[in-house]
Amino acid sequence: MTEYLAEKRELINEQLKLYVRDYTTPGRLQDAMLYSIDAGGKRLRPILLLATAKAFGAAEEKAVAVACSLEMIHTYSLIHDDLPAMDDDDVRRGLPTNHRRFDEATAILAGDALLTLSSQIIVEDVHLTDKEKVYLVRELSKASGPKGMVEGQMMDMLSEDKQISITELEHIHKNKTGQLLRFSIIAGAFLGNASETSLVEMKKMGNALGLIFQIQDDILDVTGDAEVMGKPIGSDEGNNKSTYPSLLGLEGAKSQKEQYLMTAQEALANAGVDQTVLSELIDYLSSRDH
Amino acid sequence: MTEYLAEKRELINEQLKLYVRDYTTPGRLQDAMLYSIDAGGKRLRPILLLATAKAFGAAEEKAVAVACSLEMIHTYSLIHDDLPAMDDDDVRRGLPTNHRRFDEATAILAGDALLTLSSQIIVEDVHLTDKEKVYLVRELSKASGPKGMVEGQMMDMLSEDKQISITELEHIHKNKTGQLLRFSIIAGAFLGNASETSLVEMKKMGNALGLIFQIQDDILDVTGDAEVMGKPIGSDEGNNKSTYPSLLGLEGAKSQKEQYLMTAQEALANAGVDQTVLSELIDYLSSRDH
Repeated sequence: MTEYLAEKRELINEQLKLYVRDYTTPGRLQDAMLYSIDAGGKRLRPILLLATAKAFGAAEEKAVAVACSLEMIHTYSLIHDDLPAMDDDDVRRGLPTNHRRFDEATAILAGDALLTLSSQIIVEDVHLTDKEKVYLVRELSKASGPKGMVEGQMMDMLSEDKQISITELEHIHKNKTGQLLRFSIIAGAFLGNASETSLVEMKKMGNALGLIFQIQDDILDVTGDAEVMGKPIGSDEGNNKSTYPSLLGLEGAKSQKEQYLMTAQEALANAGVDQTVLSELIDYLSSRDH
Repeated sequence: MTEYLAEKRELINEQLKLYVRDYTTPGRLQDAMLYSIDAGGKRLRPILLLATAKAFGAAEEKAVAVACSLEMIHTYSLIHDDLPAMDDDDVRRGLPTNHRRFDEATAILAGDALLTLSSQIIVEDVHLTDKEKVYLVRELSKASGPKGMVEGQMMDMLSEDKQISITELEHIHKNKTGQLLRFSIIAGAFLGNASETSLVEMKKMGNALGLIFQIQDDILDVTGDAEVMGKPIGSDEGNNKSTYPSLLGLEGAKSQKEQYLMTAQEALANAGVDQTVLSELIDYLSSRDH
């Protein structure tokens, strides 16, 4: 698994840099975009997309552009979320955040540019048909827009310093992090011409995966190693954020995660595809240490 | 002309509100998006697009979605440009700017949401073919992204408090405001199946139009009426910004504008289409008082 992840991460890293260099002019904006693109990251979303596409028999070259597009959206959202007016974070992945390394104006514009580019690289990709491009831009916009990720971030901001219920917490995470993870699964299955029945199961798996990811994130903020994570531990508690551990206790959160893990593995088994890599990826996401 | 502008503005206003309501969930994010969408604005870009589409014989219904998409991009860029880290403006069109009415985090997210929506409403439009959707998303991304509007804004920020040449100034404006105006012309001509020869002329016209628009903007910042404009006069000078009047003098700027006006009208005449409304629109843009 480690080797597989490293190989795909490298593929995505190289391709992302190529895109940014090709689609921008040398200068401060390009520097700021490359800085955040280059700042590492696990590339989990694009890797999930590539793995799902492969499980459904799609050629990898058909999936690379949309995988990079997805990671650009994830990256732009981190740049904007880190801004002083939002989460006000100084460090991300062990490095100064974009607005600390450059300045706020540059960080806002670098995020805007990555978001704009995310559509452009899909519609300019030579391996996709027009029909596929339209489907992918539509689903990705839905997942990342005002009924998806951006709405989740808004609700997350509004819930700060407030006691919220577990239902509200799940609603926030389904939008804030869940929808992009779910998209990686749906897009991969779509590119491999998944049957309607398989697609239903994969959507179920994608939903569960988003929640597994978030619970593990919350758990790591309590039990993680700051050095491995590249960011301080305990920031959720410091920010008075409602999390799975704060609402369910650490053990309660872990057992909730196990339940979603079963749901995800079961849905994957029902989808009737080559499960090897995907099944391992789900386990990896659930037990990751950063 | 006034009646034509009012009628089309109303059409765009209504459609924009419908889109935002349809594509968002009630709450703070929707409120913030509607606030800036509702804050008026001349709707020059979408009207130019509709007028060009009509001149080339396209059905209006084919042009409405992309006209609204274009205005969403313009609106998001104003929200982000007004932020304290950027131009730090408190008033826009006679009303508090988005971050003053709501807060910075909400304004950033409202901008991100409008930008995301701008692609979505094109790819979900029922009047366009997949081929048209792909073309329009591609051209609009190019015009608004890191080799277009966002790059222009970055260069504009970097040129503050600096003496720049007229060539550098034109380069900034070609990107910052020119490319979206040019897109309105190209998209309209494309939807009306313009010939290659016509398209070349219309691009020429679009380029000139962007410069006419910007020179008039700069002139109004010197000679305009604050009440008619809905914002204070003289802010460019106050911000030490290089402008056409500051580089060429007021009379020099006016005569430069007249030259571009001739270029634009000549290109339009050469494009071989129904010129009536477009020709009047060019004159209107050049002599507008706000």
